[in-house]
Amino acid sequence: MVGGGEGSFIGAVHRLAARMDDQYELVAGAFSSDRERGARSGAALHVPSDRIYPDFETMAQAEAARDDRIDVVSVVTPNDSHAAICSAFLRAGIGVICDKPLTTTIEDARSLRTLVRQTGLPFIVTHTYAGYPMVREARAMVAAGALGTIRLVQVEYPQDWLSEPVRSKQADWRVDPAKSGPTGCTGDIGTHAHHLACYVSGLEVETLLAELSTMVPGRALDDNVGMLLRYKGGARGMLWASQVAPGDANGLRVRVYGERGSLFWVQQFPNQLQHTPLGEATRTLFLGMKGLSPVAVAGARVPAGHPEGYLEAFAQLYTDAAAVIRAHADGHRADTELDLLPGIDAGVRGVAFIMAALRSSEAGGCWTAIED
Amino acid sequence: MVGGGEGSFIGAVHRLAARMDDQYELVAGAFSSDRERGARSGAALHVPSDRIYPDFETMAQAEAARDDRIDVVSVVTPNDSHAAICSAFLRAGIGVICDKPLTTTIEDARSLRTLVRQTGLPFIVTHTYAGYPMVREARAMVAAGALGTIRLVQVEYPQDWLSEPVRSKQADWRVDPAKSGPTGCTGDIGTHAHHLACYVSGLEVETLLAELSTMVPGRALDDNVGMLLRYKGGARGMLWASQVAPGDANGLRVRVYGERGSLFWVQQFPNQLQHTPLGEATRTLFLGMKGLSPVAVAGARVPAGHPEGYLEAFAQLYTDAAAVIRAHADGHRADTELDLLPGIDAGVRGVAFIMAALRSSEAGGCWTAIED
Amino acid sequence: MVGGGEGSFIGAVHRLAARMDDQYELVAGAFSSDRERGARSGAALHVPSDRIYPDFETMAQAEAARDDRIDVVSVVTPNDSHAAICSAFLRAGIGVICDKPLTTTIEDARSLRTLVRQTGLPFIVTHTYAGYPMVREARAMVAAGALGTIRLVQVEYPQDWLSEPVRSKQADWRVDPAKSGPTGCTGDIGTHAHHLACYVSGLEVETLLAELSTMVPGRALDDNVGMLLRYKGGARGMLWASQVAPGDANGLRVRVYGERGSLFWVQQFPNQLQHTPLGEATRTLFLGMKGLSPVAVAGARVPAGHPEGYLEAFAQLYTDAAAVIRAHADGHRADTELDLLPGIDAGVRGVAFIMAALRSSEAGGCWTAIED
Amino acid sequence: MVGGGEGSFIGAVHRLAARMDDQYELVAGAFSSDRERGARSGAALHVPSDRIYPDFETMAQAEAARDDRIDVVSVVTPNDSHAAICSAFLRAGIGVICDKPLTTTIEDARSLRTLVRQTGLPFIVTHTYAGYPMVREARAMVAAGALGTIRLVQVEYPQDWLSEPVRSKQADWRVDPAKSGPTGCTGDIGTHAHHLACYVSGLEVETLLAELSTMVPGRALDDNVGMLLRYKGGARGMLWASQVAPGDANGLRVRVYGERGSLFWVQQFPNQLQHTPLGEATRTLFLGMKGLSPVAVAGARVPAGHPEGYLEAFAQLYTDAAAVIRAHADGHRADTELDLLPGIDAGVRGVAFIMAALRSSEAGGCWTAIED
Repeated sequence: MVGGGEGSFIGAVHRLAARMDDQYELVAGAFSSDRERGARSGAALHVPSDRIYPDFETMAQAEAARDDRIDVVSVVTPNDSHAAICSAFLRAGIGVICDKPLTTTIEDARSLRTLVRQTGLPFIVTHTYAGYPMVREARAMVAAGALGTIRLVQVEYPQDWLSEPVRSKQADWRVDPAKSGPTGCTGDIGTHAHHLACYVSGLEVETLLAELSTMVPGRALDDNVGMLLRYKGGARGMLWASQVAPGDANGLRVRVYGERGSLFWVQQFPNQLQHTPLGEATRTLFLGMKGLSPVAVAGARVPAGHPEGYLEAFAQLYTDAAAVIRAHADGHRADTELDLLPGIDAGVRGVAFIMAALRSSEAGGCWTAIED
Repeated sequence: MVGGGEGSFIGAVHRLAARMDDQYELVAGAFSSDRERGARSGAALHVPSDRIYPDFETMAQAEAARDDRIDVVSVVTPNDSHAAICSAFLRAGIGVICDKPLTTTIEDARSLRTLVRQTGLPFIVTHTYAGYPMVREARAMVAAGALGTIRLVQVEYPQDWLSEPVRSKQADWRVDPAKSGPTGCTGDIGTHAHHLACYVSGLEVETLLAELSTMVPGRALDDNVGMLLRYKGGARGMLWASQVAPGDANGLRVRVYGERGSLFWVQQFPNQLQHTPLGEATRTLFLGMKGLSPVAVAGARVPAGHPEGYLEAFAQLYTDAAAVIRAHADGHRADTELDLLPGIDAGVRGVAFIMAALRSSEAGGCWTAIED
Repeated sequence: MVGGGEGSFIGAVHRLAARMDDQYELVAGAFSSDRERGARSGAALHVPSDRIYPDFETMAQAEAARDDRIDVVSVVTPNDSHAAICSAFLRAGIGVICDKPLTTTIEDARSLRTLVRQTGLPFIVTHTYAGYPMVREARAMVAAGALGTIRLVQVEYPQDWLSEPVRSKQADWRVDPAKSGPTGCTGDIGTHAHHLACYVSGLEVETLLAELSTMVPGRALDDNVGMLLRYKGGARGMLWASQVAPGDANGLRVRVYGERGSLFWVQQFPNQLQHTPLGEATRTLFLGMKGLSPVAVAGARVPAGHPEGYLEAFAQLYTDAAAVIRAHADGHRADTELDLLPGIDAGVRGVAFIMAALRSSEAGGCWTAIED
Repeated sequence: MVGGGEGSFIGAVHRLAARMDDQYELVAGAFSSDRERGARSGAALHVPSDRIYPDFETMAQAEAARDDRIDVVSVVTPNDSHAAICSAFLRAGIGVICDKPLTTTIEDARSLRTLVRQTGLPFIVTHTYAGYPMVREARAMVAAGALGTIRLVQVEYPQDWLSEPVRSKQADWRVDPAKSGPTGCTGDIGTHAHHLACYVSGLEVETLLAELSTMVPGRALDDNVGMLLRYKGGARGMLWASQVAPGDANGLRVRVYGERGSLFWVQQFPNQLQHTPLGEATRTLFLGMKGLSPVAVAGARVPAGHPEGYLEAFAQLYTDAAAVIRAHADGHRADTELDLLPGIDAGVRGVAFIMAALRSSEAGGCWTAIED
């Protein structure tokens, strides 16, 4: 693991997710740019002291030289450092599980993509919501034609936690362009919404028209974004993401409408999926019920009616990644776009999405292509 | 009443709404452009045969000449005829309750506004949703500063009934440009969403950016519209209206976000209003509870927990209109914008909204001012 | 109308319900036991002064003697006076629409039943919840075998309004044994719950085991009741009614479980009905959707997605009663138990239910038969 | 661990729960009464072969003799074997985490209690629902007097999975008196409902009146149970548990009503808690929001709006148990009733509850004391 030292939220989540299905062991890390803190963090995590590294370059080289080298590295640092860290490990021949967004510039994202293709190494981007079984059920239903041709995709991601000026470790880097990249809300959560809309609908956004706004005075980055989207093939949609919307702590929701029906999924109640066949009553599908697709069945750890949540979704990505990593170890290439698991292509598209939104908004609102 | 003969849905709704609170008696009408049908409809409604008229011009002149003339006329015909009918009655000195949208051209709308101002007669536009008590509670709370400065207004109005090519009296004129005007979904339900967003937030839309789409092949008018909105004073918002969205029969919903909290109202569960003070738990306010504002208290007919609905909201507009009509009969002018009741200004703004959306979309998506 | 003078809640509701579908005209009444108040109330309702009566006996005799006599009388007085009033009108040859519960003693209830059978006159008891279209849909589905054999019926009716000692016209008589009869909560709302459970399931309660409790110190009657129920044919169930349950203003809910599925209806969201076929997803049926039974279709006044409520349900009983009254006027007997409309038998069973609950509770909890 | 071999559901859940917060390591076990299967199961779990035991007696003795003996044993076998297994480990000086219900006879339960008191060893019963943070929030609110004196506790636990005759490893032992004990539904899930009602309300049931029923022909044990409950101090309540109720996979819900308000918690949406102060709007409290009690804050692993579920609740019990075990190792007695964690007393009361329900029902319905 790189990053994730004392006080890191997302680092602890990655570790818990990795541990849940008993597929990983944490054996090495560069947990902090502060050497002492890194050492203390590693010790608390029972990492052998000779594998607690002062920085990621040292770690990449030292691990690459070991016989019992790590199988994969988790990168859980702020956005601006992803490119350099991921590159170092890929060059050292080690696969990567990287937090999103992939990078803060599209050039870095494309370079990483090149590197992944050259090396053929596993590369996973943790768009967590792709790990929820009922999201995968939705994706499978759309792919199987349950809705007919898709016409509309409406996605939204309201949060409330930046409604006022906030000071905290989590908040500070998210409103700092140097660490977050050129957008705030758009990159932090808009990119999750974009990925989810595409993941479920099976469509790609062709062009978008965005307005980024900053509602809290003095904030350097956007805290609200509204978009109109045109998907390849003719579907239309809207995307809203906000960090200044009291009422939802983490209100990610996606609705997909086709000629023959619709699907509706809400992250805060993730074990349900509403399916309305055109002209019929809405059905509330639920995790663990009979008749779900194999991908949803595979994601259930407990029987129907026993709720699962965010950590299980995150664990699912790690467990799926373990399969990819094992396959790679057995000699299979892992650089082609993965089916259920977001990989380098999803990562690059996420960055391209951010850049297109920014360009559209700065131009005063005009249709802008996503160039990945 | 003009229109509302046999087979008319909205005519029957207007009559029931007028009857509910026992403030109106139906005494005259021109119920159909088909003379026999009009006579038959009037007779079925117990209207005296000498006050069943073959057309609206005859009715306006004949009623104007009677001592026991009607106090007000309800206009419930397709959109394209509103301008001529309303003008005829206003010129005859008779106030009007008119269905929305007001007219099919902005010029007609402005002419009506001039006429209303010249005559000082009562003029009500039936944006029904403004009659729900909990919508009025929301408006009162915003006006009282419960949310602080408003930052965001998100409104949506999905329906499913035109997801396939549909043939019916209700559907036919709504997809016919000659009767509906130059838009379909935008004018039919987008205008309700626009009115509701403004009514609750107390804000006016300054400019908008819209994309009108037609999802059902062969349809002449839009059946889906997405918009970005800039409100006067700096608030931002989005508006989505669709007639091809399975899952909601009539899914009008509005969310208003301010510095200090938010409100959320859903038409299909109209007796509730969700209020989230920033940083606190969401409160589910409900019709009939203690502590609501006088406007919400006034709109409740039964005790808390006994649901009221669309017909009661419609009745509220008629009951409020009765007060305006009586005040006018007592010598008060009634042409200034009414507080709770949508009047001519709301009507004109509604048409201007439709025209701005159309222009923006035809221009390929650009910010367009609402010019009323 | 007998009762329903100034300040009466339920009288106004009956009048509005009668007016809604335009099937009734209010032409006579004895609105109050206070003569002046009765006269004032009648005048405000535009009742001709010669048909405003000082008391119900005078009214029954005078109306019976007129050629244009009333078609039916609505009895909306406190429970203790129902028996005498209903008897007077039945003896005068006039049909009755009576509020529930029918009487305060089982002997009175049985006497009324005898009288109804002797006269063959229309007699309706306003168990309002039987007027909701989706309740009728549920009843029709059970009757059609959609759930298979019924195993369980769970019904509950929590209210909060008597959580503290309350003084008001509505509250006073409900906690006064002289006016309410020997029970409080059990007779006031338990009886609605009992009727609804039987109405939807098509079953009759054979024996019950009840505990009536009084939670507010100093109250003379029960404000909470819990029951176990055995239905004829072997189904089991529970019933809970409470007036001291904060959280629901009027929380009537019924769930019916059969071998092949279940139905769930909630009065506060009355336009929905949840149907779960065994092993499948829950379907949310809604008023106005395609495929409902004729009885539910007949009860819808506006299109799907436009909510209807308590007043429409009440109006439905009046509209159905109008059909019974007309049929009677055309020479048909009306004393047999009506299909959708609660009549004298439902009324008597309601009183017998109250008496059985009281006996069971007073005996310290024992299985007690309902003897109607 | 004793039990939990191949194909065991609850064994895998216990292991995952123990692993989640990184407080346990699985080092020994007697995983199956089938020796080969036990060995295979242990090997798959990476348990050293010398600590995979053929039966629980051998394990208890062998572990007791080791310096690196286990700190605690998890007992996850069918109900009938709990007493013997727990006794063996307690006698060997090893603390126990035991699945519920504790035993199949009250005598066994009491003997275990005596043994726990004699040894002073840690003993935890996994009433999982006591691990949900919002359940603990509810308990803390009641204890702090937020509802005033408690008047009513309504608890229900409908499931659907035994609506038809079912054959599976999970179903078979649950409908077999030899393995489950003398009740089915009552012991399997009624006991969870009973514990939850007491845990949240802080009350104990004094007497109960129950009817156990068997709805599926040919089934040897009850699959539905209804009860009236009298709590010590005067509160009243009802309890319903069913395995033949389509519509809920696992519908545990509890409502607690006091003089000043109510609380409502639903297991299928566990991160919410509804609080209605008397006369005010319902507040939807949620995991991670500001202002919760320390016990709810301590139970949150991810930020507000990121759902947690059943496995996290189960993990919470294990994590709390780890604290108890460490405290015991440091010389503290652990046999007194634990505050947040269900211990031996809760286990004995659970068995006494089952026996009282059975006696009441067999007597044809009479108030029966819980004798623990």
